[in-house]
Amino acid sequence: MLLDKTINQIGDLDRKAMEEAQKRLDSLIKPPGSLGVLEEMAVRLAGITGKARPRIEGKAVIIMAGDHGVVDEGVSIAPSEVTIQMMQAFINGTAGIGVLARHAAARLVVVDVGVFTTVNLPGVLQRKVRAGVGNIAVGPAMSREEAVQALEVGIEVAQSEIDAGSNLLATGDMGIGNTTPSSAILAAFGGYTAEEATGRGTMVNDEVMKLKTSAIARALAHNQPDPQDALDVLAKVGGLEIAGLAGVILGAAARRVPVLIDGFITTAAALVACKLQPKAREYMIASHLSGEQGHRMMLDLLDLRPVIHLEMRLGEGTGAVLTMHLLEAATKIMWEMASFDEAGVSDLEEDKILK
Amino acid sequence: MLLDKTINQIGDLDRKAMEEAQKRLDSLIKPPGSLGVLEEMAVRLAGITGKARPRIEGKAVIIMAGDHGVVDEGVSIAPSEVTIQMMQAFINGTAGIGVLARHAAARLVVVDVGVFTTVNLPGVLQRKVRAGVGNIAVGPAMSREEAVQALEVGIEVAQSEIDAGSNLLATGDMGIGNTTPSSAILAAFGGYTAEEATGRGTMVNDEVMKLKTSAIARALAHNQPDPQDALDVLAKVGGLEIAGLAGVILGAAARRVPVLIDGFITTAAALVACKLQPKAREYMIASHLSGEQGHRMMLDLLDLRPVIHLEMRLGEGTGAVLTMHLLEAATKIMWEMASFDEAGVSDLEEDKILK
Repeated sequence: MLLDKTINQIGDLDRKAMEEAQKRLDSLIKPPGSLGVLEEMAVRLAGITGKARPRIEGKAVIIMAGDHGVVDEGVSIAPSEVTIQMMQAFINGTAGIGVLARHAAARLVVVDVGVFTTVNLPGVLQRKVRAGVGNIAVGPAMSREEAVQALEVGIEVAQSEIDAGSNLLATGDMGIGNTTPSSAILAAFGGYTAEEATGRGTMVNDEVMKLKTSAIARALAHNQPDPQDALDVLAKVGGLEIAGLAGVILGAAARRVPVLIDGFITTAAALVACKLQPKAREYMIASHLSGEQGHRMMLDLLDLRPVIHLEMRLGEGTGAVLTMHLLEAATKIMWEMASFDEAGVSDLEEDKILK
Repeated sequence: MLLDKTINQIGDLDRKAMEEAQKRLDSLIKPPGSLGVLEEMAVRLAGITGKARPRIEGKAVIIMAGDHGVVDEGVSIAPSEVTIQMMQAFINGTAGIGVLARHAAARLVVVDVGVFTTVNLPGVLQRKVRAGVGNIAVGPAMSREEAVQALEVGIEVAQSEIDAGSNLLATGDMGIGNTTPSSAILAAFGGYTAEEATGRGTMVNDEVMKLKTSAIARALAHNQPDPQDALDVLAKVGGLEIAGLAGVILGAAARRVPVLIDGFITTAAALVACKLQPKAREYMIASHLSGEQGHRMMLDLLDLRPVIHLEMRLGEGTGAVLTMHLLEAATKIMWEMASFDEAGVSDLEEDKILK
């Protein structure tokens, strides 16, 4: 089974490469550690790739799209038909992610893993597992088998993108209503109530917020997802695009490729991936902190720290692709900065530095 | 006098351009406001430039370099000779800012406004006002006239860079010991004690930290800078590069060009600029939040919000140039995203959105 095989392939970070990277960083003409998280990124990239000085050679953002029966509960500001309309805009390059992926020089890969209607758009990968998931407020989103299938779609798409030359992946989501299952996943894994885990998504008003919180509370009560069983949580209160994205993360980690997490929905996927294989966490790079209130709670559960604070709440991978520039900066530091010796800069007075 | 003329030239933001920009943003295929601070940046750039959809056409980072007599108090981990050694590395492109400015496709302008020794490096602008400032722990940094001269150097360099085609400037600093005057400036303007305003700079140990706090306390007690008089604060407890950077900010604002603030030292310069002309604040774009503890206190005084959280503490303009990518993203959103009408995406249900 591809999922099990992939989970078992995910290994530890390469400590030797990390030590070499740290040694190089400490030799460069700057006070030790003064490039902060940029240095941590450089060390992490070394550990992931096994190269003390990796280069980012190809970038891609993979958007998984799926629909949600829970929109029947009135949880969203847009009808489900907007999912497919936005996929068209992704392909045309005129959506937020189209603009920002181009700005980052990242390939944009759009996958139908579970949209309600038939998607017949040139350029969209057709990998539909089923036509949307069930209404989680009244039953499970999907079967356990369907969740596995969607995870495997993600693994396959990620790895074929890696085979095509990408060595940095970003995750993106599309699916009207998908902050609702993401909040349910946060509640299930974090032990939060529906009230604690539910945010305003695309800035719904108080009335919709009430419907949304109620739907999440009923989803948890009815389905009783088992937080110790990631597939159970995913199948009962998740979504197909969330499953696909968890697969992308696992697929990248198994191939030792760093993967950028985006906002609330992709971080829900990261929670699933991390529960399936805790080692996967080391291959995830946090990008932005979403305006959605539960995002920080998710990142805390994963012990990940976002670096861009723009209060965005769009999804699509927009925060993830903006962070590619910073990761590239981290690699360039390693290649292009001089050491104290090389530059003829006087050594710092070691006895004055905080150890 | 150039300084007065420049201060008087600084006008208000263009409200009409900002309204047009907001209207365009609200028409784009995304929930309203969902690109968060990226949208605020787009609106601010419209207000600064007077164009609803500006483009960033040329970028430059201006590094002002100066030395500090207060290093005699043992406040630094490096000798003053490192200032000029780093300037050489800036020119060679092998320092942190060299790498990151190249990554941002920004021109790197290095200015000697007050280094101790004679700087004879091809590529460095020779605008020395005096050879380093005095030890602020025992007397004033410089005269009021020298502070004005250094401010005018900054104005001239910024405006000549703008004349050469840059329409986005970033500020950077170099000067061994310069977190000490920056803390003194924070204490003076914010009404903080030396203890509250002093941080570890390049991560000095407890012993150096004590010397540094003491030097700042004596600088404040001896000089009695008047917080209502920006030139008094700058001349008594500032530095020539800080004055030059305040000039860069004023020069950019007078020409309606956005200017990125970097870390602790450039934000001290921003405090000076803002005290000289409060309207200058509207032309400043905050970039990163430094690891230096007083940086947030400074940004709060200015009511500016940093968007990149990397805990960097290098200076040189490194955080500022990393933020250029985000500002460019904000402009591209305005040019390249489609509206709901253009893309044929269904309207959102307005009655469900929080107003």
